[in-house]
Amino acid sequence: MKQGLWSLKWDKDHLILLDQTKLPDEIVYIDCYSYKDVVSAIKTLAVRGAPAIGVAAGYASVLAFRECRAYSDTGLTERFYAALDELEAARPTAVNLSWAISEMKEVYSHSESLETAGAELLNKAKDIEYSDRDMCRRIGSHGADLFKGKTALNILTHCNTGALATAGDGTAFSVIKELNERGQISCVYADETRPLLQGSRLTATELMANEIPCCLITDNMAAMLMNTRHIDAIIVGADRIALNGDGANKIGTYGLAVLASYHHIPFYLAAPFSTFDTSIKSGGEIVIEERNPDEVRTYKGIQLAPKDVPVFNPAFDVTPNHLITGIITEKGVIVPPYTDNIKRFYKEEG
Amino acid sequence: MKQGLWSLKWDKDHLILLDQTKLPDEIVYIDCYSYKDVVSAIKTLAVRGAPAIGVAAGYASVLAFRECRAYSDTGLTERFYAALDELEAARPTAVNLSWAISEMKEVYSHSESLETAGAELLNKAKDIEYSDRDMCRRIGSHGADLFKGKTALNILTHCNTGALATAGDGTAFSVIKELNERGQISCVYADETRPLLQGSRLTATELMANEIPCCLITDNMAAMLMNTRHIDAIIVGADRIALNGDGANKIGTYGLAVLASYHHIPFYLAAPFSTFDTSIKSGGEIVIEERNPDEVRTYKGIQLAPKDVPVFNPAFDVTPNHLITGIITEKGVIVPPYTDNIKRFYKEEG
Repeated sequence: MKQGLWSLKWDKDHLILLDQTKLPDEIVYIDCYSYKDVVSAIKTLAVRGAPAIGVAAGYASVLAFRECRAYSDTGLTERFYAALDELEAARPTAVNLSWAISEMKEVYSHSESLETAGAELLNKAKDIEYSDRDMCRRIGSHGADLFKGKTALNILTHCNTGALATAGDGTAFSVIKELNERGQISCVYADETRPLLQGSRLTATELMANEIPCCLITDNMAAMLMNTRHIDAIIVGADRIALNGDGANKIGTYGLAVLASYHHIPFYLAAPFSTFDTSIKSGGEIVIEERNPDEVRTYKGIQLAPKDVPVFNPAFDVTPNHLITGIITEKGVIVPPYTDNIKRFYKEEG
Repeated sequence: MKQGLWSLKWDKDHLILLDQTKLPDEIVYIDCYSYKDVVSAIKTLAVRGAPAIGVAAGYASVLAFRECRAYSDTGLTERFYAALDELEAARPTAVNLSWAISEMKEVYSHSESLETAGAELLNKAKDIEYSDRDMCRRIGSHGADLFKGKTALNILTHCNTGALATAGDGTAFSVIKELNERGQISCVYADETRPLLQGSRLTATELMANEIPCCLITDNMAAMLMNTRHIDAIIVGADRIALNGDGANKIGTYGLAVLASYHHIPFYLAAPFSTFDTSIKSGGEIVIEERNPDEVRTYKGIQLAPKDVPVFNPAFDVTPNHLITGIITEKGVIVPPYTDNIKRFYKEEG
């Protein structure tokens, strides 16, 4: 089997990042020997997906420390922290980025000596990467277990939830990849996911790179597909899940869930526990971001619609818990009743 | 009120066609003084939509007759029929085109003399145009009557069903235009309609040109829209309707009908009687055309997906009769039970 796409990799002394802005036309990797290369890659969206950005920031901190130390030990901490601030500012809204930077600062501030700090930072960066990989692997395994004994599965997915958004194999995509490795996949249908086309640009590229049998559709073909071909399950990611199991995910997810219910098709969210927001009792409390109308009106400078036509462009929608068959997490699959079972999972963690 | 867009107009001695390939960027009209200009406009899709092509062919026949006669009366019929054959071959699959050409041949073959033939042909071309306009007007009026006494309506539509596809105001679009003229519209939501974007390129342009309050969405936003804003009705066109009321229409229509049912929103087809195929008992007999995968993978030469990714690209889907609240025709609105009521409409016609 061909090696699938990967978003980033530490190679002895530098970080290699896939330039996702070149997809689907070219597969180009960027060698980052300076933390400034990583700052630039985060800014240009060469690396994207909250978990992947967090992991990249960990390794970029290692690069920053080395560069600062190579310059001089005098004023090292000041220069190092300034570099970390520069990294953190590269994408202010990415929660995983500021979390990773604070983890790296914590390690540095508790390091035994300047001599050992470099190795300690590298260890922490690897920790962040491997815990992400492990989370992906567990989600894949728990999700695939849902289909034990079934073969020739047709799965429908939406948006991008794969290796490009994480250090590992992704969330919903990890389930799909695991099912394929177990020989259970007949075809994975990918919604193109307008307006930003994460499905056609990224997911289709990942499916092809992993040699998973696949088929691309426009979002409005999903209903006909469910009605005319046998679909075994719909598996998508999630951006935020409320305590009652209501889940916010990429626009179009709610419609798929309604169509799945109508066609009696199981509908799963796949997401790590970090996606749960237990301060929110239900999806009604989730504020939906509305994005730039030009995302709908234009594509790469080409006008698709009248320049001044009003546009409704919500980035996400909320799927109510009663349309969700199960939530696949790294700790197992959560099923209804969600509020009780989500609370139970948290309790069992201690 | 601003004059809306129109697809074609006869102006004393020549035919004016809107160049629809320039939409939405530019509104450019083509002056056709030779039938060959019309042949070329049909081939380049400057004029599209089966009814509009039929009307254009009628007027092109008038131009062809004049050109042939200006050359010489000797061998006139031979040259004129060759020109008509050239017109008919411009778009072999368009039923209305060959129908219009055969109507024009019929008029010519029964004309009193060469002196009167030109006027008789022009009369027939106008007949074709005005019966199309009248059909559109009647659909608009019957459809708008469904909403008597209601105001501030939010209507959702799909694909393009307007003046650009017909000589008149269209089918579903005619209902929308009539409701707006009656002051009953709050907002018309238009699905962009992937992959060919007839909603964003054409419908949005027509809504703006008619100053109808509107809002463009991507297809996958329709479900969230139905769930979070009040939608009074979904009105779409149809390409072919079976005797039992099952209707084939642009891909995405079936999904909208399922979502409408889930959200308790009335769902209407608007189509002339020429759309009914009473030789077909149910939608299951309708063969769905699958189109070129590159319509999904590329847009104007830009790669949206991997070059070789498999694609499912059905042009239409079939909506079962039980999801259709009513079918708006030029003769009135047909409601369930469809088989009986469609037969009754045909009988009443004699």
